Order: sequence, then structure tokens, then C-alpha cells
Amino acid sequence: MAESGRSLQARALLQQCLRAQLQVRPAEGDAAAQWVEIDNFLYACFSLPLVLFSSHSVNTLLNVKLSETENGKRVSILDLPGNILIVPQATLGGKVKGRNVQYHSNAGKEEGLELYSQFVTLCEQELAANSKCAEARVVVEHGTYGNKQVLKLDTDGPYTHLIEF
Amino acid sequence: MAESGRSLQARALLQQCLRAQLQVRPAEGDAAAQWVEIDNFLYACFSLPLVLFSSHSVNTLLNVKLSETENGKRVSILDLPGNILIVPQATLGGKVKGRNVQYHSNAGKEEGLELYSQFVTLCEQELAANSKCAEARVVVEHGTYGNKQVLKLDTDGPYTHLIEF
Repeated sequence: MAESGRSLQARALLQQCLRAQLQVRPAEGDAAAQWVEIDNFLYACFSLPLVLFSSHSVNTLLNVKLSETENGKRVSILDLPGNILIVPQATLGGKVKGRNVQYHSNAGKEEGLELYSQFVTLCEQELAANSKCAEARVVVEHGTYGNKQVLKLDTDGPYTHLIEF
Repeated sequence: MAESGRSLQARALLQQCLRAQLQVRPAEGDAAAQWVEIDNFLYACFSLPLVLFSSHSVNTLLNVKLSETENGKRVSILDLPGNILIVPQATLGGKVKGRNVQYHSNAGKEEGLELYSQFVTLCEQELAANSKCAEARVVVEHGTYGNKQVLKLDTDGPYTHLIEF
């Protein structure tokens, strides 16, 4: 967690969902839009790479006990195990200035893409290294960086949590 | 915005949505679950009343230019004008401690309900006082405090923004 006196490096928003559809490529000419779809229990993680999410911070995101099981007990997404959907949301780094929002803290476009790709890879590696996840064949799906994140969510209580690093 | 050195009083998460359905009463016996539904452009606002949202902070939430119009220009929800859906999310006040999340900063149940009701009323008053909103008959819908927020969202880019007071 970001402590006072230390500047914010990254911000992630976690939501528990039943089902989600995310557009990964918009329609173009005759080509229909492409979507990824996940059901079963899953976590939609709206992340903002301001600075690199370290493997430690990814470990925190995946191991914190936020997912509710059928009997009401809270376990981590790795323990559930559940699928993961990562949605880049640069807007999460915005700061209100008067009536406008400024995004000066965000990484630039190229750097942002690199940090985002690293974040996705770190999540995939954590899941691959977890025997329960490997056995259940859970997947990591993610949005296309820079695209409009056309998203449909279906939740049974989103349990929205904000985690900052 | 909360400045360093001053403690966080309230946190709101704003998302732009096309359509939303929120359960306001779960099914009980023979009675079916009750839902509110909003379409048209709207804002889903997940709020956490830690301490009272002042009329100044509600004014900020409703006047900040986050809603995208068809031509890509950003205007406030009052200028759009759009409907508003308020979803209480006490989990937004959570702090990670090891692998668990603690909610010590949140208001207690009774105080939380009172603060939430005040927040909804302040939003309704702001909309009623705005001639554009009154003319377009925009509405404020809101979740039932303390219930599980069973929520379906349909977005065309959620533009997730976090605003702290």
C-alpha cells in the first residue's frame, strides 16, 4: 500500500464478477468486432500502470482474500481458483483540477504499453506457477491497450476494492 | 481532492455506462427480486461515505467533465444531461493488511446509512435545481444500503475515475 510521504506508483481496482465480455478489437469495414468472454467466477482488474507493477505487487493483488465463495468465506483469486480479466483504465490516474481532469501522472503511450504488457505477463506467470490454477485451467484475459474498453459486466456484488502501491 | 497530510474523508468511483440494472431487493419467498434499470447515457457512482459528502463534494462529482458526448467532447453529467445510479460500496474503504482487508475507516452501519441517505438526497437536490436536468427529466436511482449490490453494467468505455475528498 502506498504510504503517506511516498508517491503513488500504481493503482488497481478489483471487482468480483460472474461474467464479463470485453471488446478487444472494434469492428472495421466488413470485419466484426472481436470480444473475449469469461464466465465462471472471475476477477475483473482495472489497472493503471503509472510505474511498473512489481512481482511483489502482482503477488499482493492475486493473494489478497477478496473473492467470496458460496459459503461466504473470503479467499484469494488463486485459492478460488478464478479466471482473471485485466482492463487497462488510464482514466484511473486522473486528478480533478477545477472542472477538468488531468492525467499528468500517467505513463506515456509507449511506456504505458510496455508496463501493461509486463503486468499481464506477471499475472500469467503467477497463475502458471500455481498448481491449483494450472489444474483448473484458469485463464488470464486482457483488454487491448489504447483501445476503448467496451465492457459488459455481470456481478453478484462487485466488492469493489482499490489497492494502491 | 484529499491532500497529503489531511485524512481521507470520502471516496467515489465514477463510471460512464450505457445501461445498468441493479437489484434493490432480493427475492424472498414468493416475491421476485426487485431491480432498478437505467438506460440512456448514465453515470454509475460507487460511493463510500466515510464521513459526510458535503454539498461542495457532490457539486464536484456532478460538475466534473467526465461524460463523453457523441462527438468526443467531455462534459459533466449535469450538462449531458444523464441519469445517475448510486451504488453503495463499503468495500471501497478497505485497506490491505497482509492477505486480508480491513474496513476500520468505514462508518458504522447506522451512521453509514444516514450518510448514504444524505448523499443520495444531495444528488437529487442538485439535479432538481438544474433546469437542463429538470427539463430532460433525468433521474437518480440508488442501491439499497446494506444489501448485496447485484449489478449488471453495460459500458462503451467505463472511463473509471476515482475522486477522493
